[in-house]
Amino acid sequence: MQTLTSYVQDRWIAGQGAAVPLYNATTEQPLAETRAGGIDFAAVLKHARDVGGPALRALSFGERAALLMALSKAIHAAREELIELSVQNAGTTRSDAKFDIDGAIGTLAAYAGFGSALGSRRFLVDGAGVQLGRTARFWGEHVLVPRLGAAVHVNAFNFPAWNMMEKAACALLAGAPVIEKPGTPTALVAWRVAELVVQSGVLPAGAYQFVAGSVGDLLDHMGPQDSLAFTGSSATAAKLRGHANLVRQNVRINLEADSLNCAILGSDVDSSADVYGTFLSNVALDITQKTGQKCTAVRRIFVPKDRVGDVRADLAAALSKLKVGDPAESDTRMGPLASASQLRDVRAGIDRLAAHAEVACGGSKPIREKGYFVAPTLLVARDGRDAAFHAEEVFGPCATILPYDGEPATACELAALGGGGLVASLYSNDAATIEQVVLGLAPWHGRVWVGSDKLADQGLPPGMVLPASIHGGPGRAGGGEELGGLRGLAFYLQRTAVQGFKGYVESSFGCAPGA
Amino acid sequence: MQTLTSYVQDRWIAGQGAAVPLYNATTEQPLAETRAGGIDFAAVLKHARDVGGPALRALSFGERAALLMALSKAIHAAREELIELSVQNAGTTRSDAKFDIDGAIGTLAAYAGFGSALGSRRFLVDGAGVQLGRTARFWGEHVLVPRLGAAVHVNAFNFPAWNMMEKAACALLAGAPVIEKPGTPTALVAWRVAELVVQSGVLPAGAYQFVAGSVGDLLDHMGPQDSLAFTGSSATAAKLRGHANLVRQNVRINLEADSLNCAILGSDVDSSADVYGTFLSNVALDITQKTGQKCTAVRRIFVPKDRVGDVRADLAAALSKLKVGDPAESDTRMGPLASASQLRDVRAGIDRLAAHAEVACGGSKPIREKGYFVAPTLLVARDGRDAAFHAEEVFGPCATILPYDGEPATACELAALGGGGLVASLYSNDAATIEQVVLGLAPWHGRVWVGSDKLADQGLPPGMVLPASIHGGPGRAGGGEELGGLRGLAFYLQRTAVQGFKGYVESSFGCAPGA
Repeated sequence: MQTLTSYVQDRWIAGQGAAVPLYNATTEQPLAETRAGGIDFAAVLKHARDVGGPALRALSFGERAALLMALSKAIHAAREELIELSVQNAGTTRSDAKFDIDGAIGTLAAYAGFGSALGSRRFLVDGAGVQLGRTARFWGEHVLVPRLGAAVHVNAFNFPAWNMMEKAACALLAGAPVIEKPGTPTALVAWRVAELVVQSGVLPAGAYQFVAGSVGDLLDHMGPQDSLAFTGSSATAAKLRGHANLVRQNVRINLEADSLNCAILGSDVDSSADVYGTFLSNVALDITQKTGQKCTAVRRIFVPKDRVGDVRADLAAALSKLKVGDPAESDTRMGPLASASQLRDVRAGIDRLAAHAEVACGGSKPIREKGYFVAPTLLVARDGRDAAFHAEEVFGPCATILPYDGEPATACELAALGGGGLVASLYSNDAATIEQVVLGLAPWHGRVWVGSDKLADQGLPPGMVLPASIHGGPGRAGGGEELGGLRGLAFYLQRTAVQGFKGYVESSFGCAPGA
Repeated sequence: MQTLTSYVQDRWIAGQGAAVPLYNATTEQPLAETRAGGIDFAAVLKHARDVGGPALRALSFGERAALLMALSKAIHAAREELIELSVQNAGTTRSDAKFDIDGAIGTLAAYAGFGSALGSRRFLVDGAGVQLGRTARFWGEHVLVPRLGAAVHVNAFNFPAWNMMEKAACALLAGAPVIEKPGTPTALVAWRVAELVVQSGVLPAGAYQFVAGSVGDLLDHMGPQDSLAFTGSSATAAKLRGHANLVRQNVRINLEADSLNCAILGSDVDSSADVYGTFLSNVALDITQKTGQKCTAVRRIFVPKDRVGDVRADLAAALSKLKVGDPAESDTRMGPLASASQLRDVRAGIDRLAAHAEVACGGSKPIREKGYFVAPTLLVARDGRDAAFHAEEVFGPCATILPYDGEPATACELAALGGGGLVASLYSNDAATIEQVVLGLAPWHGRVWVGSDKLADQGLPPGMVLPASIHGGPGRAGGGEELGGLRGLAFYLQRTAVQGFKGYVESSFGCAPGA
């Protein structure tokens, strides 16, 4: 049995204490194990701050961008191996595995691009300078400089490669040394990515550490220049937000949590419209891709009342014909959930929702003897306002059709019942509807995706998180922000106003210094 | 005895329950009282959300800017009366009172200017649009739209007018209805400002509420679209950050807390330099203005070892000749502290610091029989690294000279011992020193102010918070950000990525829509 090692203080060490096993999600055979103990987390943080941070900050944005590009290539070189590992450890089909692995490779490359455009700079200039006194002699600029702490990343199990590397890309480019903690069920994939990062020799000492297992007392040692970014459940997010030492030390926190993402079918869209096809394929994709274990997956499908019958039939037909099974088989379209506890939670969640709905297809019943399988499940709510559908995310291949009256304002009102989400999608060809619904959804969502005939097949689906757009959402979704091009760096930087004689301030800290 | 009323749900109501008295800080005579009970805070929040918010959001930025200009004028029309009230209730000299009152008037006017430049827009566009797909048909923009909740402002006692109105200016311009809670010791000034706001009739119903007294169970009723901005102690800030309902509901929080602000005298500056005069006058001003009760006041003065004797003598001479006494007398340069509890805390704080220092002037002993007076106090630390001077802010007319070796890197290292501050100032004429120290200070400070001969007397002092520069700081200082021009609005807005067909997305949500 392989024990996943941790890479701390520039060396690999085995954990100590009780083992937590990882399983093949299809066969339920043990694959590897993690051990939580034996790591001196105060020393890990200190190593990041004292060794990794200074080394990264000695480089310019352009030089750090080159490191990201080299990491992207190192992971790409092992792409096939990682896909294979993901099929075993994460229960993903090859296509789903690529979504994760290529996401990591692509996001690193994208940030390499954002960073290389910054060239030799070592800090960012924020906006235009401004005259502060009665004359222009007294001048102000705003700069964004690297903070001096460690970036702790507690990642989700569903995207072991992408989630770790999208966070690391922003932090490393900003000049922050990272400490990565993978989600345990899929830690084997994350561990192999970590090994590739280390083997590549690309990063300076101390810039990258990897903890396979629990983070122990790490949070108790964090300080005011450190930061913590977490992706996972709202319950854990709330616990972290209220953690005594994080509160006391005013540690910066970024949280991505549950999200009852929605898709809205505009009342102007009939079954003959191109965008209706886009709607069906995107919703079916969101339900089944990664077996529904995607923080951006659609959970609530708002459909005009008079269209519910058609949509139900069309979606159920699409879902029912997909082959669910061993993800290693090439014609399989959906594999198992990632873990036994996921399976338990998803089955229970489907049962809770089904008590308020009709089951159009799927359901909570076991579909195979072995493996963490559940069927793609489509529910149709009896009442679109029923709190059951707006209060709890079932993190699996399950979504619910919620009827609405077809009015844009009603769709926005119902969407808001989710209490804050990562992404909402709208399918409409009516410009006025689009403008109204986007502005109505925006206060409650970090991203709004609009499908229309004119976008045809040239748009990427709403479930896809793109490096150039921010990822995060208010309220239940955690209130965090990641990615969004250079916006994603702000979490790791300190914005500081500089005031003084214009001749000094503008030349040293104004736009494009050294450029 | 006047009982300060609260303005909630568009009417003035008297509080209930036990009275908390407010005193004349010079005579210790009771002036007014607040009563904490009798307010239905759930209803107050609901009124802001349901009545004030929609009315504000129906206006454009330009229209809301006009409201701010009208408020600025309404307060300006009562300027003399407010100065008089401040002298009585806050113990401020006329000059200190103007600093607060004119700060409120000026910040409202500045935000009226920032807003009027936005014209008829109802949301902000954040940065340039970007191509997201293989072709430009799939396009992304970022918008900042008004959040839908109430803006709760828990303000500090030291700037009853400015602190309330600088927060309100940002919130109202952003479209957020405000609920203002003044610091109790100086609530009489804040209350009169509130009365002027209400009497002006400028704001729509529900946009402005004012709570004289405690906020009771208000925090328990806040939700995910609400926001809380607090100015005050680190201890209260930490309590708010960990508040169960705020954590659970993911309420947005902005905190401005303690700050051991520093001034650094560069080793290149000798006594004949113009900037040495600027240094002396700014430090003396910071110690005595508002009787040292200023969140941006200098607490730590880093002086090259070989200059400590001169600086001590020059500063002590400047401080000793200032008349301390009844702020109503025209030649008084420093009045009393704002309250009896302030006096207790400041005296105890001076004693704690004095145990590690020499007292160059002042000290903790009483200087008048009546009133909350303490002398301007200058200490000289025996050891510049002694934790006593970097761990606790004495919120009164007291600062400490800390010797350093004259090296820029040492100054930055010692400044960082404060654990995060609002502002650091540097006095130097050497461009290389300026660049090195600014970048060294920036990760730990929200603002860095640079004095030099070339700025001469044309710069405003570092203790002054300007609307065009951000105000806030990391770590101990709370991690918040206020002001900074339009940056100050972001706290009340939701940043949302919009993705879709370029023709729709760019025309509706791209740069300068409707402009």
